[in-house]
Amino acid sequence: MALVFDLLGVFFFALSGSLLAARRGFDIVGSLLLGSLTGLGGGVVRDIVLGVTPTAFDDPVYLLPPLAAVVVVYFLHGPVRRFRRPILVFDAAGLGLFCTTGAVTALEHGMNPVAAALLGLTTGVGGGLLRDVVANRDPQLFDPGDLYALPAMLGAALITAFWAVGWRGVWLEAAVAALVFALRILSLRFHWHAPH
Amino acid sequence: MALVFDLLGVFFFALSGSLLAARRGFDIVGSLLLGSLTGLGGGVVRDIVLGVTPTAFDDPVYLLPPLAAVVVVYFLHGPVRRFRRPILVFDAAGLGLFCTTGAVTALEHGMNPVAAALLGLTTGVGGGLLRDVVANRDPQLFDPGDLYALPAMLGAALITAFWAVGWRGVWLEAAVAALVFALRILSLRFHWHAPH
Amino acid sequence: MALVFDLLGVFFFALSGSLLAARRGFDIVGSLLLGSLTGLGGGVVRDIVLGVTPTAFDDPVYLLPPLAAVVVVYFLHGPVRRFRRPILVFDAAGLGLFCTTGAVTALEHGMNPVAAALLGLTTGVGGGLLRDVVANRDPQLFDPGDLYALPAMLGAALITAFWAVGWRGVWLEAAVAALVFALRILSLRFHWHAPH
Repeated sequence: MALVFDLLGVFFFALSGSLLAARRGFDIVGSLLLGSLTGLGGGVVRDIVLGVTPTAFDDPVYLLPPLAAVVVVYFLHGPVRRFRRPILVFDAAGLGLFCTTGAVTALEHGMNPVAAALLGLTTGVGGGLLRDVVANRDPQLFDPGDLYALPAMLGAALITAFWAVGWRGVWLEAAVAALVFALRILSLRFHWHAPH
Repeated sequence: MALVFDLLGVFFFALSGSLLAARRGFDIVGSLLLGSLTGLGGGVVRDIVLGVTPTAFDDPVYLLPPLAAVVVVYFLHGPVRRFRRPILVFDAAGLGLFCTTGAVTALEHGMNPVAAALLGLTTGVGGGLLRDVVANRDPQLFDPGDLYALPAMLGAALITAFWAVGWRGVWLEAAVAALVFALRILSLRFHWHAPH
Repeated sequence: MALVFDLLGVFFFALSGSLLAARRGFDIVGSLLLGSLTGLGGGVVRDIVLGVTPTAFDDPVYLLPPLAAVVVVYFLHGPVRRFRRPILVFDAAGLGLFCTTGAVTALEHGMNPVAAALLGLTTGVGGGLLRDVVANRDPQLFDPGDLYALPAMLGAALITAFWAVGWRGVWLEAAVAALVFALRILSLRFHWHAPH
């Protein structure tokens, strides 16, 4: 199930990257590359910090979600691709899944709780940050009009705290990922934001 | 010969970075830094993914090509430095060499074929992407008006396929690098592009 | 003392990042993240090149300076936060400390002198470069109106040369860091610059 969550996170982030590429007028190869970078970037950073071979380079199955994402985006009708909302929703789904799987992976590798929460956050926000940086736009991560990092921080911290008291497992991870996703979407809907 | 190809790739990419720095009005130190990042960046990323000490930090000879590149650029006459074409040509030469040497290095380290092709692509496009990102401009990699990643993908895939059937060696690598270079230049000349 | 210098460097760079975030209108979470990336980024790159677990992920004490920096910035009066000068001064302090501690760390890990000087430079300029790249602005590193990389190169080279003749220790490092800081500030004040 850990693999399924990870691949789902790759797929959602890849969708956000491929959609952004389509909006920016990139061709299908650029769309595949930006989707791959967004989907795989956070996990590659996580694995390099952990000192292990990045799963994206170790297991070819990780290349399927970005391929699927670019097929989905490429066959969408033109007008749909121009909306900004789907990018935000898919990005939020990736954020929820990755801050969770990132923290779990770090804990499984024996990192201390603070480092595991930090690495969960890094995994969650890393792919989207790379996407926005190479697409040469202001990162969503720093948009002061809603909450982005805060839900991911909360999710990674919850996973770490539950781990410390012995609560683990796929349902818990799914619940935390759903909570992060919900908080992110609600903050977009109701313009929740942190103090300036 | 592997070292010679690698150093030539560093030199061509460093030229593209130093020329871009000159066009952007950076001083000679900025030109050296942007050239070094462009020339060495792809290989550093490759080595970090492979889990080995980056050759650029291991062997000081890797610092000579960026130094040579900045000397060349600095003594060019002003008007020449402002042309956009030399940047594209040197970048194409680096792309051809690096997607080849990147894939070979990955295969020599025992990576699976898919990962080796992916790492060849990453090595090939990495330096130029870093150059464009830190120079704060839209990456050439995503320019929909020509082919950039596709020739590198083809080159890295060819190297991997030939390796699987036992065809290796310096002439093969030179031929693949030349093919990638030719496809990139032809796509610029004739505006070949992937579907949008 | 090595830890103290490193944490001071993190604090100064984090201040520069958090101040830039405040100027750009990021919220307090974005300010913490940009400060953390600036303060911790150079050291993380250094440790990944060295092949060790990044100290920022290994030792939670490294998270305190970015937290302190965001508290300082957040409680500054609004107008103060809009000045450009404090960012430059704090950045210069981080540069001096990090090119020094980066070179020393590389030498302690047995790198050759050229690589150690290069890694000192990379550690010194890395955090500020990451800050400017994710904040989507032209990097200070490439500003041709003053000296940025040159003092850091000198500092890292001095540390390496002194190490080779057996001169080491906290006072020497403090003196080199102060020299780099002074050269950087003087170049800003008197518009020293490298040839174009």
